Amino acid sequence: MSKSGKDMNNSRRNFLVAAGGALAAGGIAAHTPAAAAPELGTAKPAAPSDDIEPFYGLHQSGIATPAQTQTYFAVFDLQTEKVDDVKALLRRWTDVAARLSTGTTDLSPTPAVLKTDSGEALGLGPSRLTLTFGFGAGLFDKAGKDRYGLKSKKPEALIDLPYFNGDQLIDGHTGGDLSVQACANNPQVAFHAVRQLAREAQGIATIRWAQSGFSAQYGDKAPRNLMGFKDGTINPATPIDYDRFVWAGDEGPAWMRGGSYVVARVIRIALEHWDRMDLDYQEQTIGRHKFSGAPLGGAKEADPLDLSAADKDGNPLIPATAHARIAAAQMNDGMQILRRGYSYNNGATFVAERWPPWHQGIEYDAGSLFVCYQRDPRTGFVKIFDKLSKLDAMNQFITHIGSGVFACPPGIAPGGMIGERLFGA
Amino acid sequence: MSKSGKDMNNSRRNFLVAAGGALAAGGIAAHTPAAAAPELGTAKPAAPSDDIEPFYGLHQSGIATPAQTQTYFAVFDLQTEKVDDVKALLRRWTDVAARLSTGTTDLSPTPAVLKTDSGEALGLGPSRLTLTFGFGAGLFDKAGKDRYGLKSKKPEALIDLPYFNGDQLIDGHTGGDLSVQACANNPQVAFHAVRQLAREAQGIATIRWAQSGFSAQYGDKAPRNLMGFKDGTINPATPIDYDRFVWAGDEGPAWMRGGSYVVARVIRIALEHWDRMDLDYQEQTIGRHKFSGAPLGGAKEADPLDLSAADKDGNPLIPATAHARIAAAQMNDGMQILRRGYSYNNGATFVAERWPPWHQGIEYDAGSLFVCYQRDPRTGFVKIFDKLSKLDAMNQFITHIGSGVFACPPGIAPGGMIGERLFGA
Repeated sequence: MSKSGKDMNNSRRNFLVAAGGALAAGGIAAHTPAAAAPELGTAKPAAPSDDIEPFYGLHQSGIATPAQTQTYFAVFDLQTEKVDDVKALLRRWTDVAARLSTGTTDLSPTPAVLKTDSGEALGLGPSRLTLTFGFGAGLFDKAGKDRYGLKSKKPEALIDLPYFNGDQLIDGHTGGDLSVQACANNPQVAFHAVRQLAREAQGIATIRWAQSGFSAQYGDKAPRNLMGFKDGTINPATPIDYDRFVWAGDEGPAWMRGGSYVVARVIRIALEHWDRMDLDYQEQTIGRHKFSGAPLGGAKEADPLDLSAADKDGNPLIPATAHARIAAAQMNDGMQILRRGYSYNNGATFVAERWPPWHQGIEYDAGSLFVCYQRDPRTGFVKIFDKLSKLDAMNQFITHIGSGVFACPPGIAPGGMIGERLFGA
Repeated sequence: MSKSGKDMNNSRRNFLVAAGGALAAGGIAAHTPAAAAPELGTAKPAAPSDDIEPFYGLHQSGIATPAQTQTYFAVFDLQTEKVDDVKALLRRWTDVAARLSTGTTDLSPTPAVLKTDSGEALGLGPSRLTLTFGFGAGLFDKAGKDRYGLKSKKPEALIDLPYFNGDQLIDGHTGGDLSVQACANNPQVAFHAVRQLAREAQGIATIRWAQSGFSAQYGDKAPRNLMGFKDGTINPATPIDYDRFVWAGDEGPAWMRGGSYVVARVIRIALEHWDRMDLDYQEQTIGRHKFSGAPLGGAKEADPLDLSAADKDGNPLIPATAHARIAAAQMNDGMQILRRGYSYNNGATFVAERWPPWHQGIEYDAGSLFVCYQRDPRTGFVKIFDKLSKLDAMNQFITHIGSGVFACPPGIAPGGMIGERLFGA
């Protein structure tokens, strides 16, 4: 698994986000399209937007796949009490996902396709669509009930996330039994894919929450996040080690080997508030220069993060509460997570900010759809974010309002079914 | 005005949406990127996404400009009681809009730019950004008060929209004193532009409501709307007559000559419900074939809409309540409006559908950000939509939840100020 897993990805422009890498560069409330970052400074053109991403393989697509520019993350609740219904649904979802992401629907369209497809993505090309499925805790144990006889197979790593300092989670934006992250280079293609899955789920499962997202990235330039800071700057400083940080190994149930755990967080950013701060304050908050992306005290984007650097009076150049410091790899035992996040923009709604000056009113309903994949959330997101939630100066401007954690089973071969090893199908 | 206005637009790939044109093709709840439609079937490539659209001219940019792929529509409430504050704000907005849409910020960036710019669009190019400003009724008369001495200058055409059958407008998504539609080929560029305007408005005006939107269109293909039907099919059947249908003339106040009136509607679509309907029912609802885009009874997308066509029993091929029939030009005295609409996708929220089977629960919070420009809303949107709201079979699936109407003053020359003729500046 280990070797071939690497082989599968060797030709891809992947990157692993170290805690001291992109997290520090742009904030945990930031998005990082994987496709661009490693190519920074090169002239290699991006792949055509309507390429097909392989659906079958050792791992699910959409994890190590270079990030597309658009996403639609959806979470479903199961309404059925029958495990056979769940299996049949996953069978249908697998078939639909394979058909959509290999472009079958789009590349040889006839009117008959509209009998099973809502049609709005016809003509848009595969657009590098990937669909990545996950299983929530509710699949194994819902309110103490072992609905599907799967309770004994629940991975220990599939934890309920702890309460983090400052969490203001909205009930309707948390939890869920099944997840799917659709990514594509066209927003209509990503949304369309989830709609076909929802259609197949009628009577079995309904959408619990969903969020669309986008990346500003295009061409070969590194993007800035909505806070205006460069993102994806220092990744990876070390060779990518998917087997160590991303893919589940022998430590858990066999059915998860080669899978990964996804944590999704909807993080509203008080952008009006942020935009009122002067540049120096913003840079002290992040720990980096906004224009160049260099660490405070450094000159270039790629300069290493020197946490011991001090001014002539001995004060640290990178403040004790700077996001870059708190998130730095050396502060987190070198733990790394693979981010696959985006920005979101739902317009403007009423909000009461939780920090001074405690403004309340209509503000941008926008921020980060933070998504990360890891081998174990306990040593990944939870470890890194627990410290951030308590110490990070950026917390003045961000509020986590949505949350989910899901076990993403490994990939499959043609004819297989997502989760086949869990269900023994 | 008339001749030169035409000259300005001759070289552009504009089109005018006849009531019987794109409205009928894809539904009023549909988006129509203007750039692609007239080129359907040609191989001419789209302009590079980072082109600059002219900011100065007889008309504001973003109306006759070929549609970009992304939009952010924002509406502001004025908090000041002083007309000088409003004038100063419009002066700043004009300067910021000119700077952003001509790419000044982006094309020669130095760190100093971050003193006045939040920075998240640096490196993304001008992306064909346009900013189109409008004045709401509240600028002229707020709760009976003539705050700024402008009441006598209010155009008669700047009406409050009447209640339409089925309206379920959300209070926080209607009205407003000032509007701006940002359009660009990158979502972060459009949003960034409005953020800079909001920053300039601190203490003077705050955002009341806002909505981002996207078009699926890319390359030279005609897009489908979220209902899966082709959009922008028959436009225009006649030469574009902006002076007749889009630009305000001598019928209103002099300060609006060369301007236009924008109507914006946020239209939620019950997509789950729609996706459960079989193809035949969908086609009877729209009055067109989904796959080909041809009118029912026709064979090709470009076939004319024959409202008298009947089957052997004398039943109309295009049903009496079909959207295409109700919206047809011949049903609306030939009136035309220029659409500049997009789809929106805010995730999923609770909703109670207003038609059988009266489902309520979590559903897609997605649909159409319908935007149209016209010479007079009374003879444009109101005339066409009043009939649609009563008769259109599509109403089973759409709900208007947001609404605004704004007077967009004419364009300006360098050194000018948006609305200069209204304020006598």
